[in-house]
Amino acid sequence: MAILMKGKDLSEKLLENIKKEVANLTVKPTIAVIIVGNNPASKVYISKKKKTAENIGMDSIIIEMPEGTIQQELETKIEELNNDKAVNGILVQLPLPKQINEYKILEKILPEKDVDGFHALNVGKLSQGIEPSAVSCTPAGIIEILKEYNIDIEGKHAVIVGRSNIVGKPVSYLLLNRHATVTICHSRTKDLESITKQADILIAAVGKAKFIKEKHIKDNAVVIDVGINRNDQGKLVGDVDFNEVEPKVSHITPVPGGVGPMTIAMLMTNTLRLYKNQREEIK
Amino acid sequence: MAILMKGKDLSEKLLENIKKEVANLTVKPTIAVIIVGNNPASKVYISKKKKTAENIGMDSIIIEMPEGTIQQELETKIEELNNDKAVNGILVQLPLPKQINEYKILEKILPEKDVDGFHALNVGKLSQGIEPSAVSCTPAGIIEILKEYNIDIEGKHAVIVGRSNIVGKPVSYLLLNRHATVTICHSRTKDLESITKQADILIAAVGKAKFIKEKHIKDNAVVIDVGINRNDQGKLVGDVDFNEVEPKVSHITPVPGGVGPMTIAMLMTNTLRLYKNQREEIK
Repeated sequence: MAILMKGKDLSEKLLENIKKEVANLTVKPTIAVIIVGNNPASKVYISKKKKTAENIGMDSIIIEMPEGTIQQELETKIEELNNDKAVNGILVQLPLPKQINEYKILEKILPEKDVDGFHALNVGKLSQGIEPSAVSCTPAGIIEILKEYNIDIEGKHAVIVGRSNIVGKPVSYLLLNRHATVTICHSRTKDLESITKQADILIAAVGKAKFIKEKHIKDNAVVIDVGINRNDQGKLVGDVDFNEVEPKVSHITPVPGGVGPMTIAMLMTNTLRLYKNQREEIK
Repeated sequence: MAILMKGKDLSEKLLENIKKEVANLTVKPTIAVIIVGNNPASKVYISKKKKTAENIGMDSIIIEMPEGTIQQELETKIEELNNDKAVNGILVQLPLPKQINEYKILEKILPEKDVDGFHALNVGKLSQGIEPSAVSCTPAGIIEILKEYNIDIEGKHAVIVGRSNIVGKPVSYLLLNRHATVTICHSRTKDLESITKQADILIAAVGKAKFIKEKHIKDNAVVIDVGINRNDQGKLVGDVDFNEVEPKVSHITPVPGGVGPMTIAMLMTNTLRLYKNQREEIK
């Protein structure tokens, strides 16, 4: 029987600690979240972020902009928030409507307020081994889970399936910085199975329900499932076929209750870190 | 018999093309090179860069600063060059003396003039698949060599041995952007041989003479040797044991005459690109 790596429990512990720390602050950390348009999934994420911030005593500002917002309007809004000393972290909820150049928007956010860690400058730092205060939340959450469950990273072969800028790439940099041998696979990878089967640590971030099967896994591997997919019955399922894979591995994250809750806990962790950096500068 | 991938010939061709293009320009592209201290190897590199620039009709400015230069002095010099409209590309020769924070120096260079592609912002862009005008020269040269010899990258398993910020990491991003499956190995990698033996494309950037042997190689692999080491007889040798490996592979770069000459050709390519971007902005 595999050990279940319960990100949910860990995230609650982390949030509890942040809450205690925030309780002692006279000025509250503040996160500003911009949402453009009416994507229902985005609305759910946003309201979760707001609620979590409230629960731990942080302030949040939700800025809703209409679907037809143009590049310049969004950039102007970001500049306002960049200049607003009361705002410590800025997050633009993705995806953005098609008329907007996402990359240019992320570049507009002041790197010091880039709470999602998506700014190219912060990604570059991470890549160069100088980890910024705010690292992309899901990858940072994965590292926290591995730490919590005492999984050694150094010298291990970590295989990542999926090469997104939000998960696959940044988690590969975090693992390389911690001295793993790292392989990134993706849709063009040939004979995926022969590569994933080498993984001491397998990270599935493909976005396809139950894509990773028993045949992809080495005995006693550690499996991190980043996927959040809905099956035909509307139930949440991961990228890993849990029932097939679980008996074979030493550790696995469940879906739900694994990586998902860590993402929001890391967002709050990042907000607090940026807040502290900014207060430090004022001193 | 393997096909020798002669970077030297390719670099001459590229430089010849740049020379023709530069001949038609009224304002010449200009590269500024800063060297701090008396590292003899650095002096050799610098004089090569100067000579190459001259040969192709570009202007170069060599700024020699004493070994005891402090951080602030070097930063002030970089700011001057950032503000100097006549300078298109700025390069700080590495390594720097110990009293200087290398990372902070590289960050000082205006990203638009970062001819070496070492600025975190440019590294981040490269990582995110938005390749900047100036990509780190050795990795860019490797891609040019693969292109010249019609080596497919998409779907191939590229294994990189060595994870430096100058070669290993950026070349991994270039290969991933071109749809290779990418593995990065390094000193902490366990059972290196079992991983390198999977490589369709093997990139050796370890800095150890003849480190890669026949046993590390898959039949018919493509081998890129980034190493420039001197053996006991003072002769240049690569990271790959050429005599052992060559009979087994389909393509290999020699040392000298392989990757080395490409680095300087890419530096000139980058200078011209930055020049063009800057002229474009003026229009």
